[in-house]
Amino acid sequence: MELLKQRILKDGVVKDGNVLKVDSFLNHQMDTVLFGEIGKEFKRLFEKENVTKILTIEASGIGVACMTGQYFGVPVVFAKKTQTKNIDGEVYTSRVESFTHGRVYDIIVSKKFLKAEDRILLIDDFLAKGSALSGLCSLVLDAGATLVGAGIVIEKGFQDGGSLIRNRGIRVESLAIIDSMDSTTGEINFRN
Amino acid sequence: MELLKQRILKDGVVKDGNVLKVDSFLNHQMDTVLFGEIGKEFKRLFEKENVTKILTIEASGIGVACMTGQYFGVPVVFAKKTQTKNIDGEVYTSRVESFTHGRVYDIIVSKKFLKAEDRILLIDDFLAKGSALSGLCSLVLDAGATLVGAGIVIEKGFQDGGSLIRNRGIRVESLAIIDSMDSTTGEINFRN
Repeated sequence: MELLKQRILKDGVVKDGNVLKVDSFLNHQMDTVLFGEIGKEFKRLFEKENVTKILTIEASGIGVACMTGQYFGVPVVFAKKTQTKNIDGEVYTSRVESFTHGRVYDIIVSKKFLKAEDRILLIDDFLAKGSALSGLCSLVLDAGATLVGAGIVIEKGFQDGGSLIRNRGIRVESLAIIDSMDSTTGEINFRN
Repeated sequence: MELLKQRILKDGVVKDGNVLKVDSFLNHQMDTVLFGEIGKEFKRLFEKENVTKILTIEASGIGVACMTGQYFGVPVVFAKKTQTKNIDGEVYTSRVESFTHGRVYDIIVSKKFLKAEDRILLIDDFLAKGSALSGLCSLVLDAGATLVGAGIVIEKGFQDGGSLIRNRGIRVESLAIIDSMDSTTGEINFRN
């Protein structure tokens, strides 16, 4: 998605440790106009899949997922990162490791909101080592629902999450795949 | 907002301890079609205020805030609940008590994304005792920005958060204000 790539080149900042800071438009401040275009693009990519529900993970996936959900006309469910008093009843759960935040946590979704008849599209802002996305896949499989694929805004193509998920036969559509980046020069190279 | 009130009556569940469960359409599963209508209503209410930015708080405020932001054509910033490695530089911070989750936490926003020239609209899904909303107000004041008001989806009018914030001269527009509810009968009464 050319608009997104241009925005990454303009406002993304490459930091040490393979960190790409895009907090000015994606995951702290969110550009709702750009998000609208991203939502339309995911709709175009998955429109033949009869998606009944979108599943994402708090917090930074929620904005893109909602903006996408409106074009499909389907609800968005977000997996929560810790058990809260507000979720009662049975939940599906999966373990996720966050390399960015250096911790392991459980993600949970109420069983009320994932059903065997659902056709689920996963949406998230980033794909790097794939732990979060893999956790979301597990929730869908546990529910016996159909996983139609995953829509990712930015994939770090030099990390192995994308390969791991695709090698399981899951369709992953990333709107920008970064093949390399350099914190010294600030250079970012996209996969064609 | 009649559409919202009808939805609360249809799908909201009153639990002990003044808990209203609306997780089937608002804060776990999110009805993106309803969110679109909510966004349009906030736009109608605040359209003369020259809003430049929307501020919300993770996680359940993000969806409604993004759907609202697209109608204003402005970015959404979400306050984060814990310090993460992904935020560097200076932040505005405020302390918030969550009565729902029984804990106290800090919320932070990067100083890059709140400027003195900004005209900020706060958006959140719930207003009860007002701690989260009060914390967001503090962030805006610390930044020297103009606070044009707050748009709330559901206000528990029998708790004092709404009065506390309005008594500070801040405009609060709640799309549904609940005056009373009963966990025994399931009855919910709205303010006219």
